Amino acid sequence: MSIRTMQSAEVKELLHKVAGFNKTGGNERAKQVVHRVMHDVFQIIEDLDITPEEFWQAVYYINELGQNSEASLLAPGLGMDKYLDIRLDAEDEQAGLSGGTPRTIEGPLYVAGAPQHHAFARMDDGTDSAAEVMILTGQILDQDGQPLANAVVDVWHADSKGGYSYFDRSQSEYNLRRRITTDEQGRYTARSIIPSGYGCPPEGPTQKLLNQLGRHGNRPAHIHFFISKPGYKHLTTQINLAGDEYTYDDFAFATRDELVVDAHRIEDPAEAASFGLAQPFTKVEFNIQLVPTERTELQTRHQRQRALESEVTESQPTTA
Amino acid sequence: MSIRTMQSAEVKELLHKVAGFNKTGGNERAKQVVHRVMHDVFQIIEDLDITPEEFWQAVYYINELGQNSEASLLAPGLGMDKYLDIRLDAEDEQAGLSGGTPRTIEGPLYVAGAPQHHAFARMDDGTDSAAEVMILTGQILDQDGQPLANAVVDVWHADSKGGYSYFDRSQSEYNLRRRITTDEQGRYTARSIIPSGYGCPPEGPTQKLLNQLGRHGNRPAHIHFFISKPGYKHLTTQINLAGDEYTYDDFAFATRDELVVDAHRIEDPAEAASFGLAQPFTKVEFNIQLVPTERTELQTRHQRQRALESEVTESQPTTA
Repeated sequence: MSIRTMQSAEVKELLHKVAGFNKTGGNERAKQVVHRVMHDVFQIIEDLDITPEEFWQAVYYINELGQNSEASLLAPGLGMDKYLDIRLDAEDEQAGLSGGTPRTIEGPLYVAGAPQHHAFARMDDGTDSAAEVMILTGQILDQDGQPLANAVVDVWHADSKGGYSYFDRSQSEYNLRRRITTDEQGRYTARSIIPSGYGCPPEGPTQKLLNQLGRHGNRPAHIHFFISKPGYKHLTTQINLAGDEYTYDDFAFATRDELVVDAHRIEDPAEAASFGLAQPFTKVEFNIQLVPTERTELQTRHQRQRALESEVTESQPTTA
Repeated sequence: MSIRTMQSAEVKELLHKVAGFNKTGGNERAKQVVHRVMHDVFQIIEDLDITPEEFWQAVYYINELGQNSEASLLAPGLGMDKYLDIRLDAEDEQAGLSGGTPRTIEGPLYVAGAPQHHAFARMDDGTDSAAEVMILTGQILDQDGQPLANAVVDVWHADSKGGYSYFDRSQSEYNLRRRITTDEQGRYTARSIIPSGYGCPPEGPTQKLLNQLGRHGNRPAHIHFFISKPGYKHLTTQINLAGDEYTYDDFAFATRDELVVDAHRIEDPAEAASFGLAQPFTKVEFNIQLVPTERTELQTRHQRQRALESEVTESQPTTA
């Protein structure tokens, strides 16, 4: 049965009151956004003839989502983070700020305040003895290929089970999270372990919805980066390790061709020794180009809720 | 800066994949709904130029909403329950099922399995000695005004502080919640206490959003009803006590003129004695007309998550 009430005076008046248009006080932007969102929600209910049962399923789904703190996990799963990146790319292009290494999504698992080191950091706590040793290295460069010293490379990744320290309480504090300032050649180097891909909690609400869509909730093995240096656009990005089953089928839509990086097994004892290693290891090289900007608001990551971000005071990189 | 990407092949393809249109399996209805919802969310972001900061505020707001189990409280505050009622009224009209006492919203605070009594029930546990005694009574009738015996009148309301038992753990089990089957004259009578209006938790996320809209989060003093009898349309409704500051300014938009009921102070000792009372009291009379239907799916309340509903087996009313 097709029920059409959206054009009625009653529904229009309801939306007007819902948004608080008949009240002084409050925030005009919030009123505008709520009016538009609720109008569109009502229109969807009308157009798709959403039943009360379906509606209440959605409402209690939101309660469940929040109780599991998964709104920020469902968001990338529903392509929202990717869509924001598409918009930021288009904005950069309009502003003449394109180029450099491409951005991709942050994900919800950053933790502020990781230990900061110069040029080299060991990221793993050594407890995952079965994991393959990874040497992650690269240069931060400007668009002319000149090295950028004292850039801050903030790296975080999962362990060999796909878990992230802080959220996975079995890991030590800041395990697999480090900030590394680049040396005079713009180079950063980390000793760590090869991460596994991430999978949504199998019993959680995000996976439950993905199941309804016939979709999996897996990400390929990947490594997150924030890169910042005064005078340059802040870069939020990730690399995917090539050859993973999910490299081109990421549930979070974060893969970009320029960010798929080969991992090379190194058996040569001499090269191992150059990194202080006595065993074969896997080397991952990721060089990053930054785009200059005078606009200071583009030189830092955007604001969002992040673990410990309000608790720690981070030292800022100095100008080289 | 106006960024337009919605017509791009990239965004269209993203939405196609988000909804799982490229995957076998899953549920076609879920795919259709998610595709439409995400398209409209993306369109809102484009049209209102929602910033990443605003977007992430909304995402973490949803987490907070769920952590406080307030999605089902925000829903009526944003007019959703009222809108569903407008649609159900229109559907009834199309189906020739209009008439009788009007419906209004259920609210999120029903608890299944309240004690069942015949003709009369005392609803309060007697601990709120400062509260005004209420005698709530009325007849359940068909559309010809004939009384309906053995209808189930399921009543719940707040205490004198606006709190509901079960959710307010300081109250006794099922305080101010009873199911009463009507007598041969279709009459139900309850001794209870006059409820206060309800206010959203002042520090909760629902009130936080209402503040942004310049809106309050208050409801007038009201009493909830489910009324059911085989052969008749199930009725979900409420009455508002006349004269409350918020009678015509309910944050949940549930007030309907036919449901505003006068409360009468009764000082006459003889009438008090007829209800077994030795003191003056307030009498609230609410007569209810039900609409006949053979459609059994309309004879019960719609499905939604309700406290204890999956734990209790309720006895069904018998045909008179």
